[in-house]
Amino acid sequence: MDSPAPPPSAPSPSASSRPAVDAASLLDRLRALGRVGRDGAGRLVRLAASDGDRQGRDLLVSWMRDAGLAVTVDRIGNVTGLWRPAGTPDVPPVVIGSHIDTVIDAGIYDGCTGVLAGLAVIEALAAAGVVPARPVAVTAFTNEEGVRYAPDMMGSLVVAGGLAVEAALAVVGTDDSVLGAELARIGYAGTTEPTALRPHAYVELHVEQGPVLEREGVAIGAVDSLQGISWQKVTITGDANHAGTTPISMRRDAGLAAARVITFLRERAAASNTPTVATVGCIAFEPNAINVIPSHASLTVDLRDPDEDRLREEEAALAAFLDDLAAAEGVGVAVERLARFEPVAFDPAIVGLIEDAARRRGLSCRRITSGAGHDAQMMARVAPAAMIFVPSAGGVSHSPREATDDAEIAAGAAVLLDVVAALAGV
Amino acid sequence: MDSPAPPPSAPSPSASSRPAVDAASLLDRLRALGRVGRDGAGRLVRLAASDGDRQGRDLLVSWMRDAGLAVTVDRIGNVTGLWRPAGTPDVPPVVIGSHIDTVIDAGIYDGCTGVLAGLAVIEALAAAGVVPARPVAVTAFTNEEGVRYAPDMMGSLVVAGGLAVEAALAVVGTDDSVLGAELARIGYAGTTEPTALRPHAYVELHVEQGPVLEREGVAIGAVDSLQGISWQKVTITGDANHAGTTPISMRRDAGLAAARVITFLRERAAASNTPTVATVGCIAFEPNAINVIPSHASLTVDLRDPDEDRLREEEAALAAFLDDLAAAEGVGVAVERLARFEPVAFDPAIVGLIEDAARRRGLSCRRITSGAGHDAQMMARVAPAAMIFVPSAGGVSHSPREATDDAEIAAGAAVLLDVVAALAGV
Repeated sequence: MDSPAPPPSAPSPSASSRPAVDAASLLDRLRALGRVGRDGAGRLVRLAASDGDRQGRDLLVSWMRDAGLAVTVDRIGNVTGLWRPAGTPDVPPVVIGSHIDTVIDAGIYDGCTGVLAGLAVIEALAAAGVVPARPVAVTAFTNEEGVRYAPDMMGSLVVAGGLAVEAALAVVGTDDSVLGAELARIGYAGTTEPTALRPHAYVELHVEQGPVLEREGVAIGAVDSLQGISWQKVTITGDANHAGTTPISMRRDAGLAAARVITFLRERAAASNTPTVATVGCIAFEPNAINVIPSHASLTVDLRDPDEDRLREEEAALAAFLDDLAAAEGVGVAVERLARFEPVAFDPAIVGLIEDAARRRGLSCRRITSGAGHDAQMMARVAPAAMIFVPSAGGVSHSPREATDDAEIAAGAAVLLDVVAALAGV
Repeated sequence: MDSPAPPPSAPSPSASSRPAVDAASLLDRLRALGRVGRDGAGRLVRLAASDGDRQGRDLLVSWMRDAGLAVTVDRIGNVTGLWRPAGTPDVPPVVIGSHIDTVIDAGIYDGCTGVLAGLAVIEALAAAGVVPARPVAVTAFTNEEGVRYAPDMMGSLVVAGGLAVEAALAVVGTDDSVLGAELARIGYAGTTEPTALRPHAYVELHVEQGPVLEREGVAIGAVDSLQGISWQKVTITGDANHAGTTPISMRRDAGLAAARVITFLRERAAASNTPTVATVGCIAFEPNAINVIPSHASLTVDLRDPDEDRLREEEAALAAFLDDLAAAEGVGVAVERLARFEPVAFDPAIVGLIEDAARRRGLSCRRITSGAGHDAQMMARVAPAAMIFVPSAGGVSHSPREATDDAEIAAGAAVLLDVVAALAGV
């Protein structure tokens, strides 16, 4: 709109100086953390509870301690730094959260931007000498990506009570490791009960990981909802047989059946005019020999839709297709549910605070649905929650080419500061 | 035909007793060798130049030495046992060959049947006290399966001069091992020049690995030709991107493109009324994460046809499809040729000897084309060659369910004995 913006009113500085985020420090830390957890090929592979994750956690904790925060680690390994200055009552805190674990060959922004911006916001409030009506905390949740251990967003899911901590610690990883043992090995098996974290409000800053904000030239996304996510593993069983001597008509080819699942999902998603997305990211054949028809094939299916009914429709369509496939190709098909999250509606009041803050700072802003899963969707079960998105260049994420301009990150952190200040009663 | 069989004339026993294969010993050895090279799960995985292969080779060599054969190992690791009794001139031998390496999770018959039957035939001739006009040798060729090192039929290919021994020894395996180093490690890097093996004639007994003989109730296949084989590796490059936030229209999904290759090959083979077969046995995605669109996919393509022109047509059709696919899906496609062998016509005279021997022994026999590749196709380049097939239950091969009846193996070995006796001038 073209009407002049109203004069600034919130955050209302006390006798103290007006809080301001140290963007240079935030960006330095983002790059420093991005150098931790590289593999031999230089790829960022800071998988949950790995040695690289340990190094990243150690670095984060050292920064939290430098900032004077009280650091606690809970039983699922979530790391929280609490700021409660003298004069601030011991009441439920405003929590700023995200994660620092990554996918394989990741970028440096996903997750880390939110955690480090949260730390920078607390430092800004502390430096300004304000005494908030509530404590403010920053949390790095364990295993948000879910690459090594399923389901993803595990640390925040456990905090929300959606998964028992004992069950989460017993999860066996893609490398046959056990999460609980790995957390103990890297020194992050804490003692605090995860469900003890009950925020007054929860806010998460994150890169969009999609193309919308950049394409529309918008600086700030006020995230008011989040897609539902369905993860399944499909295992197909056929007959190992000789590639040269087995007529096509006599084959029970598990690999062919797997390929039919992939093309089915694409044709269906492409044909619909809905935001439904379907992805097959993992596949494996057995015996995986050039001259042997695959006897076994396994693949993962990632289905997402902002509408729960439509997501259920997509799941049902896949199930029906798999039944037909088993009959048509003479193969066995087994489906394992890895994760399932309904779409989430975030707290309208916090979404409004985000829009207000952006307007006061003269930043373009739009409401947006998150296509990715985030810890905020779990925290929304136990506290009023919302998210702030900043643009992702080319919509690229989960890739070394993931990029967000320094100025865009600084703008997102500034909006986060204003929202947290308002929620914390500064 | 119904006309009475002519009276037996070959093999023509000398003053000695009539040679006869000790089928019980042959079958015992087949099962003993089948127990060697099992993995932790009990699967037979005697890959070329592996520790299991070493144990199998050691067992075979011990049997050859027990039989009084002169054992030599050539530079590519082919093991030959030569029988030249006193009175037999030092002229090019009749060679009986096959292989003892296996695929992953293999059966016990593929290859081993031919090698051990060859040894049993020599033992039968020696026990009968015959003095042949030519020496008789049995050879176990290195890496016939090609699972660990490409191309397959490598040992016989090197003997035939189709691949320089230095190049073969430098081949890097699927496990990044180097064949030459592995042969040295297991003690089978010999000194004989592979090309020194120039047989008077070559005969190979093998299980059909296909359903034809069993389905038709025929005991002996006189193999007069062999399918052409084309092995290619297709590598597809797209964009790693977030599975939840990247609209279908913006994806460059290497995994989807790989699936389209698999379904294309199947639709084409199924639609044709030719014996063409196409198989995708190996596949890999990168980064192979559940919530990341694959940036890279690789797959192997195994094309076979008894007609060279038709095989060329299939290769050209795949190449054209890959060009269209690259444009349609916005991916990069690279093709690497792993192996290429033209169809083979075996020696009519030896095929005739096989048919004669079967008829004289009252065994049903038909001419047949081999759908699988065999060392005989390489040896056919340097000597008159042919193969004898015995039935495979259900046509199953490259599987633990691979099976041939004891009586069928005994019958095949008896025919092999007669053919070798005739070729060696007994």
